[in-house]
Amino acid sequence: MSAAVGVQAVFDAGGESLSSLMERLELRMAELAGSHGSLLARHAGDTIAAGGKRLRPLLVCLAAGVPPPDSDGLLRAAVAVELVHGATLVHDDVLDGSALRRGRPTVIAAGGRGSATATGDLLFSRAFAELAEGGSVQAVRILARASSDLAEGELMQRADAWSLDVSVERYLERCRMKTAVLFRAACELGALHSGFRRPSLGVFGEQIGLAFQILDDVLDVSGPPERTGKPRGTDLLDGTITLPLIVARERDPEGAPRELRRLRGPDEAAAVCDWIESTGALAIAKDRAIGLAEDAKSLLSELPARQRAVLELVADGVVERYA
Amino acid sequence: MSAAVGVQAVFDAGGESLSSLMERLELRMAELAGSHGSLLARHAGDTIAAGGKRLRPLLVCLAAGVPPPDSDGLLRAAVAVELVHGATLVHDDVLDGSALRRGRPTVIAAGGRGSATATGDLLFSRAFAELAEGGSVQAVRILARASSDLAEGELMQRADAWSLDVSVERYLERCRMKTAVLFRAACELGALHSGFRRPSLGVFGEQIGLAFQILDDVLDVSGPPERTGKPRGTDLLDGTITLPLIVARERDPEGAPRELRRLRGPDEAAAVCDWIESTGALAIAKDRAIGLAEDAKSLLSELPARQRAVLELVADGVVERYA
Repeated sequence: MSAAVGVQAVFDAGGESLSSLMERLELRMAELAGSHGSLLARHAGDTIAAGGKRLRPLLVCLAAGVPPPDSDGLLRAAVAVELVHGATLVHDDVLDGSALRRGRPTVIAAGGRGSATATGDLLFSRAFAELAEGGSVQAVRILARASSDLAEGELMQRADAWSLDVSVERYLERCRMKTAVLFRAACELGALHSGFRRPSLGVFGEQIGLAFQILDDVLDVSGPPERTGKPRGTDLLDGTITLPLIVARERDPEGAPRELRRLRGPDEAAAVCDWIESTGALAIAKDRAIGLAEDAKSLLSELPARQRAVLELVADGVVERYA
Repeated sequence: MSAAVGVQAVFDAGGESLSSLMERLELRMAELAGSHGSLLARHAGDTIAAGGKRLRPLLVCLAAGVPPPDSDGLLRAAVAVELVHGATLVHDDVLDGSALRRGRPTVIAAGGRGSATATGDLLFSRAFAELAEGGSVQAVRILARASSDLAEGELMQRADAWSLDVSVERYLERCRMKTAVLFRAACELGALHSGFRRPSLGVFGEQIGLAFQILDDVLDVSGPPERTGKPRGTDLLDGTITLPLIVARERDPEGAPRELRRLRGPDEAAAVCDWIESTGALAIAKDRAIGLAEDAKSLLSELPARQRAVLELVADGVVERYA
C-alpha cells in the first residue's frame, strides 16, 4: 500500500508533464511489445508491457527537472532505461526457467531458454536504437557503460556464488554493478535534459539503487512469500550471498550454516532465514539501506526546491516499500 | 587452403593501412578480452581474442576505401561489429552447452549458462560503448538496427524449428535477419568513413552475407566433420530447416523424412544428409550462393577500381571457402 501511496504522491508533485511522459512511456512500451511480428509479444510482451514499478524511467524524468520538460529525447531515454531493465529480467529468466524445471530441460524448455536469450538481446538492441534516434551520443555512452557494468555484476555474482566468506565491501560492489549503475544511469540520462550539469544526481541514483538492492535482499529472507511471490531463501538456494547472511554470520558464527550447497530445498532454506532473523541481521541490513537513502537525499541540496522534494519522495518510497 | 590464399590476396591488395587496422583490431580485441577483471577473459576471451576469420571487420575497413583511411572511428566500428558477432557466438553457446551435455545440466552447467548469457550481454554493451566513443550516433543507429534484426532472426529460427514446410522465401528471410544484416551493417559502417554515400555497399554486404549463410548450411550437410569440427546434420537434429533440405524435399518428396524429431542421433542424421546429397540439392544450394555472390559483385561498379577489385576478392573468398 505504501508503495502505491508513494508513487501517487510523486505523481501529484511531479505535475502534468510527468504524468504525460509516463503515459507516453506506457504507450511506447506496449507498442514495442507488440512490434516485431508476434515474436517479441509472445516472449517479452508481459515483461515489458505489464507495468511494474517503472521506477527507473520515473528517475529519468525527475532528474530532468520538475516538472520535466516535454521532450522526445527524454521520453526515449526513459524507454531505453526500462528496456535495458526488461532485458536483464528476461535474461534472468533464462536461468530461473531451468531451475523451475528442476534441472531437467525438455526440448520445449531448451527452446524457451533460447528464446529468452534472443528476446533479451532484442530488448538491449532496441534500447540503444531508442537512444540513437534521440540523437545523443553522450546518452549512448552512459547507457553502454551502465549495461556493461550490469553484465559484469552478474558475472561477479556467479563468480562469488556459494562463497560464504564474501565481504560486505565485495557485496556492496556487486550490488553497485548489478543494480545501482542503472539507477545512476537513469539519473544521468535525465540530467542531460535538465540544461545543467548535475553530477550529484548520478550519485543520488547510485545510492538509492544500493538501498533498493539491499532491501530486496532483506525481503528474500523476511518474506512473506505471499508478498514477494517466491519462497523465502531463494538467494540461499542459488548460492547468492547477501548482506543479511553476511551480518548474521558475523553476529552468530556458531549458528551459521557450514555450506549452502547442503541446503535441501525451501524448508531448509526457510530455517536458515529464521536463524538470520534471530540474529538481528535484518534490522541491521535495513538500517544500512535507510542510511544510504538518507545519504542520497543529502546530495540534493543544490537542486530547485520542487525537484528536491519530489526526489526525496522517491527515496522515501524505495525505503517504505520495505518498511 | 583457398581461404588462407583468399585472405592473403585481400591483404596484399588492401595496402599497408589495411594490415595496420587489422593488427590494431587484434590488439584491441585482446585488450577487451583481458579487461573487466579476469571475468570476461575466463568466459569469452577465447571467443573474441582467438582470431577467427575477422570477415566482418575486414568488410568494415574495405567499405571505407582501399586503402582504408587510418581512422580511429573506423577501427572502433570494426571492433564493434566483431564484438556483436562474438556476443551472438557466446549466446549460441548458451544452448549448445546444454546440448553437448545431453540435456542433463549440472550445477556447473547451469553456472556456465548464466555466465554465457551475462558474457554475451557484456560484449553487446562493449560494442555500443566502442561506437559511442567513436562519436557517431548514425553508427550507433546502424548497429542497433542490425543487432535487433539478429535477435529477431534467432527468434524466427526458433519459431520455425521442426516445421518441414518452411518455404525458400521464409528461409532466405531468416538468413537475412540472423546473418546477412551484420554483413550489411559492416559495409554501411565502413561506408560512413568513405566520404561518399554508398548505398550499394550495404546491399553488397547483405548479398554476400546470404551467400555465406547458405554455404554454411551446405557444409552442415556435406561435412566432412574433420573440416567443420562437428558431426554432419547438426542442424537437422536441432530442427533447423535449411535450403539443402527444402530443395531435397522438393526433388524427392517420397524419400524425405516425415518428422525430424524422430531422428535418433548423429548416425540417423548422417543418413538424411546422404539422402539430401543424393537428390542433387547441395549443388543447387551452392549455385544459389554463387549466384548471390556474383550479384553482389555486380553492385560494385560505381566504386573506385582498386576498392572494387578487393571487394570482389572478398566475395570470391566467401564462395571459395566452400568450393
